[in-house]
Amino acid sequence: MASTGLPPALARLVRDLCMLPGIGEKSATRLALHILRWPRAKATELAESIASLHEAIGICSECYTFSEQDPCPICNDQKRDRSVLCVVEEPGDVIAIEKAGCFRGLYHVLQGVLAPADGIGPDELKIAELVRRVQGRKIQEIIIATSSTAQGEATAAYLTEILRPLDLQITRIACGIPMGMDLKYADAQTLKRALESRTTY
Amino acid sequence: MASTGLPPALARLVRDLCMLPGIGEKSATRLALHILRWPRAKATELAESIASLHEAIGICSECYTFSEQDPCPICNDQKRDRSVLCVVEEPGDVIAIEKAGCFRGLYHVLQGVLAPADGIGPDELKIAELVRRVQGRKIQEIIIATSSTAQGEATAAYLTEILRPLDLQITRIACGIPMGMDLKYADAQTLKRALESRTTY
Repeated sequence: MASTGLPPALARLVRDLCMLPGIGEKSATRLALHILRWPRAKATELAESIASLHEAIGICSECYTFSEQDPCPICNDQKRDRSVLCVVEEPGDVIAIEKAGCFRGLYHVLQGVLAPADGIGPDELKIAELVRRVQGRKIQEIIIATSSTAQGEATAAYLTEILRPLDLQITRIACGIPMGMDLKYADAQTLKRALESRTTY
Repeated sequence: MASTGLPPALARLVRDLCMLPGIGEKSATRLALHILRWPRAKATELAESIASLHEAIGICSECYTFSEQDPCPICNDQKRDRSVLCVVEEPGDVIAIEKAGCFRGLYHVLQGVLAPADGIGPDELKIAELVRRVQGRKIQEIIIATSSTAQGEATAAYLTEILRPLDLQITRIACGIPMGMDLKYADAQTLKRALESRTTY
């Protein structure tokens, strides 16, 4: 157990930190000891940042990403291209694409992927909302940018079927060798996709 | 910057998490998004664990480790061997040794290592306190368990000199190949030490 020999308050923090993804008991102990060495004000600041998170942040009623305003700054930005909608799984994907700075359209966050085994069907995702959003608007293209995992691919296939009756272009982000990656380290599935999706040079 | 496109409350938490060791902007964003997906009560609990840490935990006036009581449970444990003192750099070292469950003596936490370049001399560490603690007690052995880094070694050498006039056994924890480690991955310094410190089989 994490708490062996630890002062209770430290053991409690270690236990709580262990609930974060990718943080095991060893890292949690290291982080907790580090926080203990901080000036108290710095620890209080971190605690407040965590405590105020849920209060400050809600979900945009247009695109369903995390936001402090509704609609979110992206949906509200009149300079963005309203004819292209990029469909992603989670708010973290919006953040990643925005950071890359390569997309000027709008987003639609599904809030997950289809995962029948976990009881997540189309009704659990923002799919009806997507269809409603597309209908009667001047959207010309939908880029399906779900992950290239089995579930992400299945979700993309399902979306394509649902959206096909609507008169618009449906595209899928490309799969292939990541930039800067040595070809020999790519897995077989990625290599297969990269070869299939080869472009003329 | 971490905050590109992030809602301010999320950006603030990412910035605060980045101050933790080994957590870069990418991990911080991932952790913050994960906390946001938690039920609010769980986030509040983590925040409280962090906020209450400094209040709950002080420093043992005997051995200088982190503790909620003074003296700490280890110094207070009458079943421990009071004739052996294990000198370590930080409270985290006490936790690691206690977890290994292989030592039944008492500890002395130096609260750092000698680092003249950073202005940390003997007076900044609990060295005078160590000497005072040893004098007039029935301590028979001092195990110097500072790290096998350059600074840890220098601190060990300094302590040996300071403690030599007192009539007790001074030992140093062994350096060598870590258990379970493939020899070919050990660095040259470790191999050198492991060979020098070889024991008869």
